[in-house]
Amino acid sequence: MLQPPPAQPGMREDEVDTPALLIDLDAFEANLDTMAALVAPTAAKLRAHAKTHKSPVIARLQMARGAVGQCTQKVAEAEALAWGGVGNILVSNEVVGAAKLARFAALTHIAQVAICVDHPAHITAIEAAARDAGTRLSVLVEIDAGGNRCGVPFGAEAAELARAIAASPNLRFGGLQSYHGTAQHLRTPEERRAAIAAAVEGTRRTVELLRQQGLDCEIVGGAGTGTFQFEAASGVYTELQAGSYVFMDADYGRNLDADGKPVTTFRHSLFVLATVISAPVPGRAVVDAGHKAVTVDSGLPLVWQRPDLRCVSASDEHFKIEFGPETTSPVIGEKLRLVPGHCDPTVARYDWYVGVRAGRVECLWPIVARGAMA
Amino acid sequence: MLQPPPAQPGMREDEVDTPALLIDLDAFEANLDTMAALVAPTAAKLRAHAKTHKSPVIARLQMARGAVGQCTQKVAEAEALAWGGVGNILVSNEVVGAAKLARFAALTHIAQVAICVDHPAHITAIEAAARDAGTRLSVLVEIDAGGNRCGVPFGAEAAELARAIAASPNLRFGGLQSYHGTAQHLRTPEERRAAIAAAVEGTRRTVELLRQQGLDCEIVGGAGTGTFQFEAASGVYTELQAGSYVFMDADYGRNLDADGKPVTTFRHSLFVLATVISAPVPGRAVVDAGHKAVTVDSGLPLVWQRPDLRCVSASDEHFKIEFGPETTSPVIGEKLRLVPGHCDPTVARYDWYVGVRAGRVECLWPIVARGAMA
Repeated sequence: MLQPPPAQPGMREDEVDTPALLIDLDAFEANLDTMAALVAPTAAKLRAHAKTHKSPVIARLQMARGAVGQCTQKVAEAEALAWGGVGNILVSNEVVGAAKLARFAALTHIAQVAICVDHPAHITAIEAAARDAGTRLSVLVEIDAGGNRCGVPFGAEAAELARAIAASPNLRFGGLQSYHGTAQHLRTPEERRAAIAAAVEGTRRTVELLRQQGLDCEIVGGAGTGTFQFEAASGVYTELQAGSYVFMDADYGRNLDADGKPVTTFRHSLFVLATVISAPVPGRAVVDAGHKAVTVDSGLPLVWQRPDLRCVSASDEHFKIEFGPETTSPVIGEKLRLVPGHCDPTVARYDWYVGVRAGRVECLWPIVARGAMA
Repeated sequence: MLQPPPAQPGMREDEVDTPALLIDLDAFEANLDTMAALVAPTAAKLRAHAKTHKSPVIARLQMARGAVGQCTQKVAEAEALAWGGVGNILVSNEVVGAAKLARFAALTHIAQVAICVDHPAHITAIEAAARDAGTRLSVLVEIDAGGNRCGVPFGAEAAELARAIAASPNLRFGGLQSYHGTAQHLRTPEERRAAIAAAVEGTRRTVELLRQQGLDCEIVGGAGTGTFQFEAASGVYTELQAGSYVFMDADYGRNLDADGKPVTTFRHSLFVLATVISAPVPGRAVVDAGHKAVTVDSGLPLVWQRPDLRCVSASDEHFKIEFGPETTSPVIGEKLRLVPGHCDPTVARYDWYVGVRAGRVECLWPIVARGAMA
């Protein structure tokens, strides 16, 4: 059942029902503009990752500022984008199962799509899906850029898969997927730079090897919010897959710049608005949001601009907030903005974004790929 | 957007699309029956907590076995149950906000409902909602049974709130809410017994004080899956609010019995079915489920009946599984049952339960209160 939206345009922010997923539109648009400005002078293009926002509205705002398309991790996410007017989508992930691949192949009627593989079994299955759908599918080889998750090693094994794709009658070789996930949250710029330098070197070597074999990489994709400037400057990567930059989160907020201070390139624009429902003893307040409203996989949420209020524990529908005697207790009914520890899985819990500006609700956007895990 | 179900009745389990939320119906029904049998000889009744299952179908199965009604944490959950035929619902939580209270009051037309307070401000607001709706609402006082979350202390402060409820023209005093949340996961039975003994003692004292003041507690509610047998035997608690027992999870599976072995009263009946999408190097497999499919707030999921497969890390749409050289690698396309660390927030990510028995899909049940956080 779709939940009703927690707000209507024109409401004051303090009238929004809670918990609600707020976008601070000024900060959000600044993030869109900042990314566009940072990418424009480089040889790379942005292909923003929609696993963060799950919204064709936001995808189109990114593309209006120069993004060439979108990434998704799932076929169901790609469907939601394509149905919402996004014309160029890379599923930056392996997809297994005939039903899913048939759904993926069907998207070629309305969008330009591509998908990733790291094993010959994937190629065989995608070739069958393309043949059955009477279409031709673009396939990238995923290489393990250092995150030790999916992907073949740099070099010969990648070339072998690329040749197998090129030799498949209903497939075309689309390039390389080379995303270093664990590098994104390394705290110092030196650590992030070193991790990406190794990814760039291995990717460059693989691109070269493929070229020698007559296989050009139309796409060399990777990078995230923590590292995209390194990949953009590499001359190897052609597409940058940052997603979290539109919203940021408490965990990305702990990444440091060269001065040892938190990186300030992008602003926190995503908040969970929560209401204080109980303040039973001095020093404690409890809000109407918990595990089901905000993920804690990257730590408990922060209370926005209130370092004196510390979120200390979570249960299904409650966060417990503590504070010292110098803080005046939040009162029952008071609304607090929480900064999620991790934006992507928090977004995935909601049906609606509530866009706010200058204290008023300006827009509601449905999170149409909420639950799109197939 | 509601996601399509990942299965159809009659399919084999290995044909179910992934990720999918499976109920092993044999284990699930055994849990329902076990709880009914354990509660029947006691003076208490089961009022199962629907924050676990979010399904009027499951609520009605519990009530068919003797449960007097359901608990929810949220008004939107109560709506979903009432609309699905559940006639007796306690919102076991404080609710703040005129819009939510108006929705709550509207439920009195189709169900018997009650709600909790721990501050005079709650009583004033609920009285206004009842008056505006032209109805009379039943209100319980929440006491802090030891979890240090919401609730007033045992004794005089609770009695003061009870008198204020009884004195409100459109409210009736319904009893006490006395749930000790943190006791549920204390690992040894001695720890759980001691925590609940203190809760029982304080609750008994409060009930007695109220009785002296002419206020009878129709409901004295509390207890969860980890402790309900202690509350049931107390002679003080009239209603038991266990929820997780229907499914269990990896965290509850770590509770110990008197012999120091994992408690076996209830069986794991809830699983996330996931597909191996990559097995790029010896000793590693990656599945198509991650943070968005299974919460990790109580630890990473276990692989069902495969202690040789260890889930070692999570990203948004992937769990990485590792294993030793003695294990034959799972192959791409192989489906694995994951046991969630924490059932409630995992359920809250899905639109559908897929009920399986003897390797076949027997039923699909919509999780109608998915996203019901208001």
